[in-house]
Amino acid sequence: MGTDRYVIGVDYGTLSGRALLVRVSDGAEIATSVFEYPHAVLESSLPKSGAKLPPDWALQVPSDYVDVLKKTVPEVLKLSSIDPEQVIGISTDFTACTVLPVKKDGTPLSEVEEFADNPHAYVKLWKHHSAQPHADRITDLAHHRMEPWISRYGGKISSEWEFAKALQLLEEAPEIYNAMDKWVEAADWIIWQLCGEYVRNVCTAGYKGMFQDGNYPSKEYLEALNPKFRNFISEKLDHKIGQLGAVAGVLSEQASQWTGLPQGIVVAVGNVDAHVTSAAANAVKPGQMVAIMGTSTCHVMVSDVLAEVPGMCGVVPGGIVAGKLGYEAGQSGVGDIFAWFTSNFVSEEYQRQAAAEGLDVHDYLSKLAERQPVGAHGLVALDWQSGNRSTLVDHQLSGLIVGMTLATKPEEIYRAIIESTAFGAKKIVNTFNESGVPVKEFIAAGGLIKNKFVMQIYADVLNMPVTIIRSSQGPALGSAIHAAVAAGAYSDVVEAAGVMGGVEDKKYLPDPQNAKIYGEIFRHYDALYESFGHNDMMHNLRHLRDQVLLGEINNA
Amino acid sequence: MGTDRYVIGVDYGTLSGRALLVRVSDGAEIATSVFEYPHAVLESSLPKSGAKLPPDWALQVPSDYVDVLKKTVPEVLKLSSIDPEQVIGISTDFTACTVLPVKKDGTPLSEVEEFADNPHAYVKLWKHHSAQPHADRITDLAHHRMEPWISRYGGKISSEWEFAKALQLLEEAPEIYNAMDKWVEAADWIIWQLCGEYVRNVCTAGYKGMFQDGNYPSKEYLEALNPKFRNFISEKLDHKIGQLGAVAGVLSEQASQWTGLPQGIVVAVGNVDAHVTSAAANAVKPGQMVAIMGTSTCHVMVSDVLAEVPGMCGVVPGGIVAGKLGYEAGQSGVGDIFAWFTSNFVSEEYQRQAAAEGLDVHDYLSKLAERQPVGAHGLVALDWQSGNRSTLVDHQLSGLIVGMTLATKPEEIYRAIIESTAFGAKKIVNTFNESGVPVKEFIAAGGLIKNKFVMQIYADVLNMPVTIIRSSQGPALGSAIHAAVAAGAYSDVVEAAGVMGGVEDKKYLPDPQNAKIYGEIFRHYDALYESFGHNDMMHNLRHLRDQVLLGEINNA
Repeated sequence: MGTDRYVIGVDYGTLSGRALLVRVSDGAEIATSVFEYPHAVLESSLPKSGAKLPPDWALQVPSDYVDVLKKTVPEVLKLSSIDPEQVIGISTDFTACTVLPVKKDGTPLSEVEEFADNPHAYVKLWKHHSAQPHADRITDLAHHRMEPWISRYGGKISSEWEFAKALQLLEEAPEIYNAMDKWVEAADWIIWQLCGEYVRNVCTAGYKGMFQDGNYPSKEYLEALNPKFRNFISEKLDHKIGQLGAVAGVLSEQASQWTGLPQGIVVAVGNVDAHVTSAAANAVKPGQMVAIMGTSTCHVMVSDVLAEVPGMCGVVPGGIVAGKLGYEAGQSGVGDIFAWFTSNFVSEEYQRQAAAEGLDVHDYLSKLAERQPVGAHGLVALDWQSGNRSTLVDHQLSGLIVGMTLATKPEEIYRAIIESTAFGAKKIVNTFNESGVPVKEFIAAGGLIKNKFVMQIYADVLNMPVTIIRSSQGPALGSAIHAAVAAGAYSDVVEAAGVMGGVEDKKYLPDPQNAKIYGEIFRHYDALYESFGHNDMMHNLRHLRDQVLLGEINNA
Repeated sequence: MGTDRYVIGVDYGTLSGRALLVRVSDGAEIATSVFEYPHAVLESSLPKSGAKLPPDWALQVPSDYVDVLKKTVPEVLKLSSIDPEQVIGISTDFTACTVLPVKKDGTPLSEVEEFADNPHAYVKLWKHHSAQPHADRITDLAHHRMEPWISRYGGKISSEWEFAKALQLLEEAPEIYNAMDKWVEAADWIIWQLCGEYVRNVCTAGYKGMFQDGNYPSKEYLEALNPKFRNFISEKLDHKIGQLGAVAGVLSEQASQWTGLPQGIVVAVGNVDAHVTSAAANAVKPGQMVAIMGTSTCHVMVSDVLAEVPGMCGVVPGGIVAGKLGYEAGQSGVGDIFAWFTSNFVSEEYQRQAAAEGLDVHDYLSKLAERQPVGAHGLVALDWQSGNRSTLVDHQLSGLIVGMTLATKPEEIYRAIIESTAFGAKKIVNTFNESGVPVKEFIAAGGLIKNKFVMQIYADVLNMPVTIIRSSQGPALGSAIHAAVAAGAYSDVVEAAGVMGGVEDKKYLPDPQNAKIYGEIFRHYDALYESFGHNDMMHNLRHLRDQVLLGEINNA
């Protein structure tokens, strides 16, 4: 083992970071370590001052990310007992768009004394959704001006992305906007901490920063949004772009002290959790759609064809694999919808019975639901409890369920909710198929792959085999693969993925009878989708809710 | 007290019967006693043979009704310590349409040895819903032939009623159909047991038996349904009609032995639980809508005007009060929808917290829900978990809820469900208003009047004061009032109701601000109502469910 070479991938999730030590020669996962962010997600108040945050805010504290490096990398070295000198590279992947304002040297404004009490000085996490009005203006103006790049994003710019969050910053906290030198993706900021070099990765620049074919949106467009936004790109955003799997720099002395890794080893360009997972599943060829299924689902797929897919999150040249077009789509709620249901709507009797059988509530409900044939619950639901990311790109939508009778049981609603997310995935697959970017394989990754009941429903609903990623640490392995490429161990990501990544041999195959019945139910899902996706009811209900709650605040 | 006169009202509900001893002079409720039917509702199998029942069946055992007389009447006499000779009359009210096949002497066919194992020989309870295909044919043919009576039933004949259940009997069990001499409402059968006289009360004959202006549907119409049904009326149904509050006969020797009441006292004509409640609430004038709110809700109102109200259950001359037109509408699920939710979808944590505060789950959820302003949950639901009785008259419809987010809590869905039933009531009130039969007062009776939270929501949603019946035993008191009239203590039901019935002084008044917001939400309810009430989705989902379940039975 003394001559083996290793790489480290660090996966930054929503609540924790994970390091994985991987053998370069075969992708063997040697050791892993997780560290939960001490500040988790700030959704109601700031840590020191306790200042309250408005609804739909979600912030993070950048030092938590550095703490992940300090805790997890030494831990995997210790667990594996390898010589750190055998590690030839490190890379990271991150949630996105997760973005922060920094000084020229990379210091986050939240760490500048005078701004520490200003919420806008903190990292805005991907699920910070309060820039929706700004996103709406960005989208509307793009269509009005017929900006060429808008079709690359399925016709809609998300409130989660760099421009919406930056415009919110400019308009709600100009003092922070003016004080920042750079508006930086956390995916790149953490690489900056490792190697002292700021390189803007092509993935987030493209998907989240509207960087297309070497250009950003024009100054004239930005000026029309807000005159003070005119020079946003040149003054705050534009920077050297790095390709995925390329070298960002080498490990700094400080980062070497944090991690215990040798100074000077390769640090690869930053990347995004979903996008690196394609490499981990060795699913980097056109037509291989990788679905990273957890609290939400992200769908990524490479292609040789440039097409306009309605409501996709984006298509970015080199956005997943250098030299290919990378497509992304997503579902904003999946596992979190299942968790919402089981946490709130499962009776004491069920919980007691589950405990008596030694099952968690998910497994107990799955066991009960499995006994019923497909279609026997008479239900169909829309999976929009957390909005719709594709194909409608509308975070103001909400959940719906139809078909309940007095005989409807929790396991039936649970099953209908799982099915609704599978129908949502089918809608995305159909949209790609209809847009000239056919989906030929469906590969599942993420936390939900452990749930056989869910996987079989997806196979039956999609009427396609569902292949399962081999690694249970897909993103961290994907990052490690990119580190191996950057370190020169492989010629490119496709080659490295072929050796270090892969899928399970066993697939979930669709049951023809179930697939047929799901075809029937999907017609109803689709009718609800088209109706409630385009009528105003959900928007009006939410607007009324917000008005009422605001009224209450005023009256208090 | 020795010179006071008394009457007894017996209320036959779905699961039990209740006797109430009432003072004639002022309606004072002296004593009450309840007896639960030993056989309750037969929904899955027959009592002796264990023979399985198909879905949507609901049967009862007639001897249970007699047992109520034997248990409860002696008990109220005992509890009150009055001299039985002071009782001058007895009357009953019943669920409807609850109907049974009998021999000439009133013997139920289920008590005839050779038929005891035949489900069709038993009482078909109101909520026996498996005659829907027969009801559909009855309705369709009536429209096709432009039968004049169909408009008296809002354009639809229910699967619950006498003709649908009889046609099912004819076609599924001709041996029972042929063996029966009479197809009798339980409301009349129990009176027959008390006085030995079969009198068909005008209320069920009109609302459930399509008896209008002295006529039933024609032989030609019945023959077109099924040639063997041609003489159904003359051979099985037609019989002497009795007005409400009239004398059916006098107490028989046998019934005197069962009850301990003096032989020969007046027995009034049978009646229906909802309809007698108008008298108990002294709400027997045009424009006073009485809503009997329990597991389901029945709306009754008298009027001088004959109008066609879409989707009403019926308009019957003398159907509530002799000499007036009686209108009926209904909601097939109300309290049972609340119970369905609390029994199945409230978490252990909530149940524990409710117990810790000494509250039942309904009250605990109400307490939590009350803290939120109206509209703050962002939800709207359709109250069709048990189908829709008015205005759509469609038991194949199902529940719907829209607007859920990951922050939606059980108390919010609970509130939305309560609101949905209030919107359902508003839809009925609006339909009456728009049809020339204006609703001027809304009087609530039934088990749900105890729930202040529910009553206030109804006042706010209806944007009308909600008045509450004084008696907590509305139907039994209503029956007692009819007994007093039959016994000659009052000239008519209106006079008796004015003395013996009444409402609480305190009303629930609508809050103007809440009413305004509910007006907004009702627009969405109404849009869902019109859309899902007339598109095929709920029917298709149910049909698919039934197909799947049937397939499973075949494969088993």
